[in-house]
Amino acid sequence: MRKNKIKIFSGSANQVLAREIAEHIGIPLGEAEVGRFSDGEIRIGIKESVRGKNVFLIQPLSNPANEHIMELLILTDALKRASAHSVNAVVPYYGYARQDRKTRARDPITAKLLADLITAAGAGRVVAMDLHAGQIQGFFNIPFDHLTAVPIIANYLKQKEIEGEGVVVSPDLGGMTRARELANRLGLPIAVIDKKRPAPNQAEVINIIGEVKNRVAILIDDIIDTAGTIVLGAEALKKEGALKVYACCSHPVFSGPALKRLRESAFEEVICTNSIPVAAALPADKFHILSVAPLIGEAIVRINEDRSVSAIFD
Amino acid sequence: MRKNKIKIFSGSANQVLAREIAEHIGIPLGEAEVGRFSDGEIRIGIKESVRGKNVFLIQPLSNPANEHIMELLILTDALKRASAHSVNAVVPYYGYARQDRKTRARDPITAKLLADLITAAGAGRVVAMDLHAGQIQGFFNIPFDHLTAVPIIANYLKQKEIEGEGVVVSPDLGGMTRARELANRLGLPIAVIDKKRPAPNQAEVINIIGEVKNRVAILIDDIIDTAGTIVLGAEALKKEGALKVYACCSHPVFSGPALKRLRESAFEEVICTNSIPVAAALPADKFHILSVAPLIGEAIVRINEDRSVSAIFD
Amino acid sequence: MRKNKIKIFSGSANQVLAREIAEHIGIPLGEAEVGRFSDGEIRIGIKESVRGKNVFLIQPLSNPANEHIMELLILTDALKRASAHSVNAVVPYYGYARQDRKTRARDPITAKLLADLITAAGAGRVVAMDLHAGQIQGFFNIPFDHLTAVPIIANYLKQKEIEGEGVVVSPDLGGMTRARELANRLGLPIAVIDKKRPAPNQAEVINIIGEVKNRVAILIDDIIDTAGTIVLGAEALKKEGALKVYACCSHPVFSGPALKRLRESAFEEVICTNSIPVAAALPADKFHILSVAPLIGEAIVRINEDRSVSAIFD
Amino acid sequence: MRKNKIKIFSGSANQVLAREIAEHIGIPLGEAEVGRFSDGEIRIGIKESVRGKNVFLIQPLSNPANEHIMELLILTDALKRASAHSVNAVVPYYGYARQDRKTRARDPITAKLLADLITAAGAGRVVAMDLHAGQIQGFFNIPFDHLTAVPIIANYLKQKEIEGEGVVVSPDLGGMTRARELANRLGLPIAVIDKKRPAPNQAEVINIIGEVKNRVAILIDDIIDTAGTIVLGAEALKKEGALKVYACCSHPVFSGPALKRLRESAFEEVICTNSIPVAAALPADKFHILSVAPLIGEAIVRINEDRSVSAIFD
Amino acid sequence: MRKNKIKIFSGSANQVLAREIAEHIGIPLGEAEVGRFSDGEIRIGIKESVRGKNVFLIQPLSNPANEHIMELLILTDALKRASAHSVNAVVPYYGYARQDRKTRARDPITAKLLADLITAAGAGRVVAMDLHAGQIQGFFNIPFDHLTAVPIIANYLKQKEIEGEGVVVSPDLGGMTRARELANRLGLPIAVIDKKRPAPNQAEVINIIGEVKNRVAILIDDIIDTAGTIVLGAEALKKEGALKVYACCSHPVFSGPALKRLRESAFEEVICTNSIPVAAALPADKFHILSVAPLIGEAIVRINEDRSVSAIFD
Amino acid sequence: MRKNKIKIFSGSANQVLAREIAEHIGIPLGEAEVGRFSDGEIRIGIKESVRGKNVFLIQPLSNPANEHIMELLILTDALKRASAHSVNAVVPYYGYARQDRKTRARDPITAKLLADLITAAGAGRVVAMDLHAGQIQGFFNIPFDHLTAVPIIANYLKQKEIEGEGVVVSPDLGGMTRARELANRLGLPIAVIDKKRPAPNQAEVINIIGEVKNRVAILIDDIIDTAGTIVLGAEALKKEGALKVYACCSHPVFSGPALKRLRESAFEEVICTNSIPVAAALPADKFHILSVAPLIGEAIVRINEDRSVSAIFD
Repeated sequence: MRKNKIKIFSGSANQVLAREIAEHIGIPLGEAEVGRFSDGEIRIGIKESVRGKNVFLIQPLSNPANEHIMELLILTDALKRASAHSVNAVVPYYGYARQDRKTRARDPITAKLLADLITAAGAGRVVAMDLHAGQIQGFFNIPFDHLTAVPIIANYLKQKEIEGEGVVVSPDLGGMTRARELANRLGLPIAVIDKKRPAPNQAEVINIIGEVKNRVAILIDDIIDTAGTIVLGAEALKKEGALKVYACCSHPVFSGPALKRLRESAFEEVICTNSIPVAAALPADKFHILSVAPLIGEAIVRINEDRSVSAIFD
Repeated sequence: MRKNKIKIFSGSANQVLAREIAEHIGIPLGEAEVGRFSDGEIRIGIKESVRGKNVFLIQPLSNPANEHIMELLILTDALKRASAHSVNAVVPYYGYARQDRKTRARDPITAKLLADLITAAGAGRVVAMDLHAGQIQGFFNIPFDHLTAVPIIANYLKQKEIEGEGVVVSPDLGGMTRARELANRLGLPIAVIDKKRPAPNQAEVINIIGEVKNRVAILIDDIIDTAGTIVLGAEALKKEGALKVYACCSHPVFSGPALKRLRESAFEEVICTNSIPVAAALPADKFHILSVAPLIGEAIVRINEDRSVSAIFD
Repeated sequence: MRKNKIKIFSGSANQVLAREIAEHIGIPLGEAEVGRFSDGEIRIGIKESVRGKNVFLIQPLSNPANEHIMELLILTDALKRASAHSVNAVVPYYGYARQDRKTRARDPITAKLLADLITAAGAGRVVAMDLHAGQIQGFFNIPFDHLTAVPIIANYLKQKEIEGEGVVVSPDLGGMTRARELANRLGLPIAVIDKKRPAPNQAEVINIIGEVKNRVAILIDDIIDTAGTIVLGAEALKKEGALKVYACCSHPVFSGPALKRLRESAFEEVICTNSIPVAAALPADKFHILSVAPLIGEAIVRINEDRSVSAIFD
Repeated sequence: MRKNKIKIFSGSANQVLAREIAEHIGIPLGEAEVGRFSDGEIRIGIKESVRGKNVFLIQPLSNPANEHIMELLILTDALKRASAHSVNAVVPYYGYARQDRKTRARDPITAKLLADLITAAGAGRVVAMDLHAGQIQGFFNIPFDHLTAVPIIANYLKQKEIEGEGVVVSPDLGGMTRARELANRLGLPIAVIDKKRPAPNQAEVINIIGEVKNRVAILIDDIIDTAGTIVLGAEALKKEGALKVYACCSHPVFSGPALKRLRESAFEEVICTNSIPVAAALPADKFHILSVAPLIGEAIVRINEDRSVSAIFD
Repeated sequence: MRKNKIKIFSGSANQVLAREIAEHIGIPLGEAEVGRFSDGEIRIGIKESVRGKNVFLIQPLSNPANEHIMELLILTDALKRASAHSVNAVVPYYGYARQDRKTRARDPITAKLLADLITAAGAGRVVAMDLHAGQIQGFFNIPFDHLTAVPIIANYLKQKEIEGEGVVVSPDLGGMTRARELANRLGLPIAVIDKKRPAPNQAEVINIIGEVKNRVAILIDDIIDTAGTIVLGAEALKKEGALKVYACCSHPVFSGPALKRLRESAFEEVICTNSIPVAAALPADKFHILSVAPLIGEAIVRINEDRSVSAIFD
Repeated sequence: MRKNKIKIFSGSANQVLAREIAEHIGIPLGEAEVGRFSDGEIRIGIKESVRGKNVFLIQPLSNPANEHIMELLILTDALKRASAHSVNAVVPYYGYARQDRKTRARDPITAKLLADLITAAGAGRVVAMDLHAGQIQGFFNIPFDHLTAVPIIANYLKQKEIEGEGVVVSPDLGGMTRARELANRLGLPIAVIDKKRPAPNQAEVINIIGEVKNRVAILIDDIIDTAGTIVLGAEALKKEGALKVYACCSHPVFSGPALKRLRESAFEEVICTNSIPVAAALPADKFHILSVAPLIGEAIVRINEDRSVSAIFD
């Protein structure tokens, strides 16, 4: 059976997800140690032969991003040198994705640098989910399977039977295409939160473009990081007359004050996936986490069997 | 003097612009023939030595894009083999930019392919203007100077003294950041044209998100191609009560029915740059073309003299 | 069966040949759209999964060469990103082949540039036929299968039972090795047409080196482009006493005045292959087209099954 | 003056050393921010134009190594994209150097991976000091200037006028060449500490090969990490009759229990350089830190002026 | 059966070993001619199809090294172009290994250059044995299987039942790790021969560090080249009271006066492998050659079957 | 003065020519040792700093080609690592040039491999003379200056005032373009020697195509190797009534029986250049050697000063 050819290994970023994926596929997680030497350098030990295998290395590039990136690169180097048939980097959350273009002079384009590093280390394919910008796929010349959790989020929202008329809201101008995608699946209109400068040299004010009054608003973003923008957005929506506000995202980065802000926020519920493990225990009445293990597991099986991955989303 | 080190050459895509740029810098345009053999293959002849020179090759990748791309690549190959110190591809309009990510299964990412082709041919730097997506910079690993004509457009609009309250409108969801940028320079609010699907499986309808009633609307896009979307947008804006509608863009692709549509449209004026030559004669009362030769010329001089290019836009 | 692993796709350059090849192999032609956007940019759509397949992409780089090259590159990019196991560029006619070295200062070497572009786009193998110069194989580092139609042409000439003593004539000095190859298969002597300059600064005159008087002359070239040289050659051969003159070539580029010239020429018959589709209807009494679909189909099957391709010509 | 061409920038790993180097050269340290976003991703801002400059980026790859490596790579990417003439990675301490070969099956060779990452990010030269293994130079194809602090250490020891007969001791079998180098400068014999296994399957015992009785022993290593080996070595030397024991190293990694161990050890003095900043305050009677800023500064000036770097050590 | 996929070819360096390896595996040696044109250029002819095969090319890079290197590269180029599935360079003796770092200014790092040449020629894997320095593995980015003959040498020595107490001696400071490895397998202590400089500017004297008196000394090196060092070492050991001295090495380079020196030396026996063919007939009482064909053959079978190679040495 | 930037170094292939070139330029030859270790490996020592210099490395790839190639590559590696500004490989005779395409199945394309090796070693430019096939330039992507000695040969022949009517003869079918080039400079007709097979399966016979009776024949080839073909050609020309026969070539490879054959041949004179040193003393009445040192020296000066090299031949 072709499953013999698959090996799943995990860095330290999300071993729970890796184990869930392996279980979904029906194979054990590959045995590897990923630790640190006394001086902080990464020490890995791959405990089983990988010769001729299609290795899938599960590692979201979440906080601490630099540690997780270096683990991914070192594991890839080791697997390549150990004669794996292919090393497939599965990075459910692609870090540094917001550094995808120069916004100021002398900015790095770290998302592209990262693509070059992953390729230089020897990966032959990347599998990622809900990239901050679709163009990041083009940063690679190796095959790239781009998964999306938006259907999973849409299904959850549909099952919830949110009563009343809805509107999907993008928390910033760059995210309107994503909002439209979810809105189409739910049959809803969209709106957007604009940081408007009424006249040059005046301060920015938050402004909502689109109709939200007396509607249930669903804010959607790819990443919730410090949650500052989205929480201010929720307040503005309420002020404009929104009945209820939900927050959804694919990647719960939840850094700094995020959890505190979200807990204290006006949101009915915060919906995210397990692409990144959420450190703290979350109150179940306010947070809902959807598993992407079946999605990623299915993609791995199809990649290994040369079957269409895009068909998952048809 | 350091200008001795510069040579400007031009493919066939926009020789008028190339000549204007050379004049701005104060040097003659490099002598080169760019023709075709009888079977359609490109025949070039570079008539002067380029050894040790910093060559700037002016070639927007406009229609016919494939011809212009191949000219750019072949000229680059010839210049590199002729021992130019550096070959700088100046592509005021970067073609295939809308193919910058996979939107369907098995799509190419032609904008990235193009980046790889330009690099493989031997270019050492790219200068472009108002990219469709800023991430295209990251498709390259060579230095890339990204210019923008938005300040030129904003200045023109300011000088026009458009009376009445204005609003800057993005013709689609993906262009709102650009609209916000122009709006900030003019101190205006923004709106966006959404193609909304009222319920799944129903037809798309055009919908305006944001306030436009009794306002002068300025539609801005990076590219006007067939002008279908923008002309429908103008009509929708009028229907929603906009007083007047202007269209602006950096790149007047103007393919197919574009000129006819624009001429017959509700637009007060269509404002664009000369990044791409507009083939037909345009009625001066409806079209206004702003030259980017001083902008590009200034960038070339600064690149040649190792002075900051970003400072142009401060 | 191993044929499952093959997929044949075609650009727009020679879909008739592609279909013939697919039929020869006994599989359907892969479903793909190759069209143009309104602004002339290439739009492709690959309609079936190619994961894990050995894709053979049929595309002679004939007029319009630049369009056909860009189609080849974009299709290759899409297939590689779509996780094809290998993308094999089958270019029966390799364009720009006459730009294979610098003949003047600052010439490009476009045939090498093309090799680098094909490799950069992601092709893993090239299959071509009757290259203008065998050294073009060395422009690639990927495996390259070089087929030849000379045996097919020789067989046709043998079956024709051309009566009288023959001579194979090269239309220029660079083609004598090819003439010798055909002559060996037919057991004939060779001659060559020289453009001689009787003294420096005098005009070139056409001169035949070798015996052609009272012989049936067979002119052979790899490419007939404008047909100027070969038609003048035919006249010179007649003047020198040749009884009849035949023209043969692998690649009927037939650009500009070629068809008119050939129709009105002294040739008994013009023999070529279908590596390039001939646009116009040709008078059957003067033109004979030999199909290379069985040759290319056989090569593809052997490549797919890891059997010797050179053995086809033993 | 040619110094105009130099810019010195520093990551966060050793800004004190970077400032000392800049002072030695007589130029200000380049202005750059190297911070973190809320989610731990690196945020950099280069505050001055670097077009056409030879940038020297000072960054030892010390603990936290992964953070320092990623800073180095991201700064290099930004500087390259900002059109620096050259980016020279100055890594006084080359991290992961002990992962320079496979000692077990499926080990990574992280020191090589690091070389590939630095090259991929765009560095054009590396300057390092006292590499763990000289072969690491060969991991790079870009020019590499390898400095050594051994003469600085030897000079210090000579000035100290250590009374009594001396012996230079390598703390392990792999370091004997380094011990011999120092011994030659001091005119002393050498010895080595061997972890011997008296018979297969018995435990290792520490054993000294060479004469140390009634001698002043100078232990030298490139790196002191946890200090476990070297402290045990000092005890063994004392037990074998050494009069006094000194410890020297180029790179004071001093991780985990190192400082405590060294403070409580039998060493007269621990001598190291400032290639890596030592976090805690060290008792001046037991620790002596030699500055390598003049050495590195001199190397940078010579590189910038195309003068021999090896001549520093003649 | 999977053995169908293997082909073994040999350059001219050690055809006897290649034949032994092929016999061990149970397949015929691939038919190829490796000769010279009249002007000394290498002429090869591969007489059988290799399409889709895993080719293992046996070629130690022994004297004449440059000829053997060029044969390896040219054969690799031919095999890659002939569509081999993989070309595996099996270089039991890796030449130029002692040029693995810069020891003087402006030295080449020829061992790295060689790695780059082998990779550029198209090899996809290297198999080598007892590298002079393990870091050479890191010179490659392709998988590298590193075999060792030390267990074979240890087993031979154990079977010999060398009477008396033994000591393993490294002939120089750089080889102590190798000596320790053999010593561990034999349960013996180690010693080392140091070229000591009693005071600066005085001549080097040979000095033994460690106990050798009344012991049977086993000198081990990776390479015996001119045998100068090792023969002087044997004399010094005898002078210090060693009872008997044995010499072992993996690679019998035996250049210049080596054979004469060894024959006339104090050694009881010189033990080496057949990684390099020894040209002259050797007196069987003084020389013992151990075959590595079973070791290499086993490694090839395991590589071909995707089974662990490291397990050979467990 | 800009000459400060040039350094000329020489491998061992033609030190006399290198010295002549350096003298022509007016600078001393760079000091370097190029020797052998006892085991035949190349040992080089570059005795002066090359930082920031444009190094020109003179090394024809003549017999023993493999030794000379490896010297070139190792010197290039050392110079690149020693921070030369550029390493320019000057190979007056490009070896393996006749292996420039696959003539049989599974042939290598060694001339391309060589190009890849030279590039991989770090050369940034190649200067060569009278390549066997111009397409070899396309094997490189780095700038390539192709010189020709044909004008020097033509001038010599003109000064000789060869009496009687002349004809330039190519010794084989592939060399007719070269013959035409010389003939144009001398205002002469051409002929060619054909190895004709009168009928399939019969033996080849030598046959002259073109008029040679009562003419002075000048045979020209790029390379005279064993001189077999050219000497048989001379005999055939005499038999056909040629009055006298001269031989010219750029590269006197003169391998095996060449010198004996040429001495005993029907040639009036054998004219060649000093691109390759001719080992034995040659009788001055039969051999004439033209120096290419001024040509190469002039090219180097122009390359260093960024002046046109093609202008030398105008």
